[in-house]
Amino acid sequence: MPSPKTIEALRAFTAERDWAQFHSPENLAKSIVIEAAELLECFQWNDAPNQRKVEDELADVVTYCIHLAGVLGVDLDEIVLRKLAQTRAKYPVEKARGRATKYTELEP
Amino acid sequence: MPSPKTIEALRAFTAERDWAQFHSPENLAKSIVIEAAELLECFQWNDAPNQRKVEDELADVVTYCIHLAGVLGVDLDEIVLRKLAQTRAKYPVEKARGRATKYTELEP
Amino acid sequence: MPSPKTIEALRAFTAERDWAQFHSPENLAKSIVIEAAELLECFQWNDAPNQRKVEDELADVVTYCIHLAGVLGVDLDEIVLRKLAQTRAKYPVEKARGRATKYTELEP
Amino acid sequence: MPSPKTIEALRAFTAERDWAQFHSPENLAKSIVIEAAELLECFQWNDAPNQRKVEDELADVVTYCIHLAGVLGVDLDEIVLRKLAQTRAKYPVEKARGRATKYTELEP
Repeated sequence: MPSPKTIEALRAFTAERDWAQFHSPENLAKSIVIEAAELLECFQWNDAPNQRKVEDELADVVTYCIHLAGVLGVDLDEIVLRKLAQTRAKYPVEKARGRATKYTELEP
Repeated sequence: MPSPKTIEALRAFTAERDWAQFHSPENLAKSIVIEAAELLECFQWNDAPNQRKVEDELADVVTYCIHLAGVLGVDLDEIVLRKLAQTRAKYPVEKARGRATKYTELEP
Repeated sequence: MPSPKTIEALRAFTAERDWAQFHSPENLAKSIVIEAAELLECFQWNDAPNQRKVEDELADVVTYCIHLAGVLGVDLDEIVLRKLAQTRAKYPVEKARGRATKYTELEP
Repeated sequence: MPSPKTIEALRAFTAERDWAQFHSPENLAKSIVIEAAELLECFQWNDAPNQRKVEDELADVVTYCIHLAGVLGVDLDEIVLRKLAQTRAKYPVEKARGRATKYTELEP
């Protein structure tokens, strides 16, 4: 992921504006956390925000994630699945089932 | 996006651990910003961090974005392209070209 | 604020380690959001975290805020009170009372 | 810290609007990270933002930190100094001098 159509649309958007010069990994990492906080702002004072607003803010986070993946030269599906394998090992089903406990605090 | 394989892997991971109960939109929004800040931490004091570490932290952000999209019932490609259309309108090529100026501050 | 004792303790801590070189406004801004996300992590899956842990994470946020105020040459009490005057104007008591509505969405 | 005048001004501001009901520790933690990201936004694409804008965003972060300290019943100077003592132990001068290396990666 994302689809070739999405990759091409974002690439064209950036190229038309000559914005690749601003897309250093660090600037993109800042942008991801800035957009993630705007997503959280939907939930700042209540837990039932406008769905369309939430979708738009989530889209902003993912847009910068796609840009960063492009700059890093990685595929998002690949790194998500690779990380999932690590997370599976940290959270064995028999210890983690039904519990939101950080792996560092799961009993051995 | 993501690929059906990734969606199914994340769904199974969550189901095996009975973790869907923790995946409210608000909790996932908090998780996205927490992981985004861990990604930024790679760049806290320098701009050339370990690439593998950056990829792993980016994967964590995207993983929670996929979970949130699932809970919201939306497709990430769709909302990214829909938002891109709005952003295109806010940043016309002739005004935004080569400039990292917020749309609210672009001259009319 | 902070107290002269706190200012001096942080100044000495930084000087002993020759860390002022890392304390650019941008690096401190990144550090503040990174520590703020660690504070939020206390509340990621539950709303009743360990009080001492919350205090320690809040202390980290405020520590970097003090460093940034020092680099900017401003007093935190002064800028908080100056901003409060602006916020008072945005949220008139008669409109904002008992409502967590953003000022941009308060009825005129 | 903060000064009694600042504490009283923030307390009165909140009381007049009947907003204490929204100031749960979790909501304040969300608010701190949201404001911290707005501070970071000053540095999103450049490292020389408008000083007044930076001061105002820093003030927002500290305002919520003061609210959270009030709800927790702690003094910010006290917790900052207590945390500093721990950080001193993690970063001995002879190992940390002039190096922005995380304590977990300092050589023994």
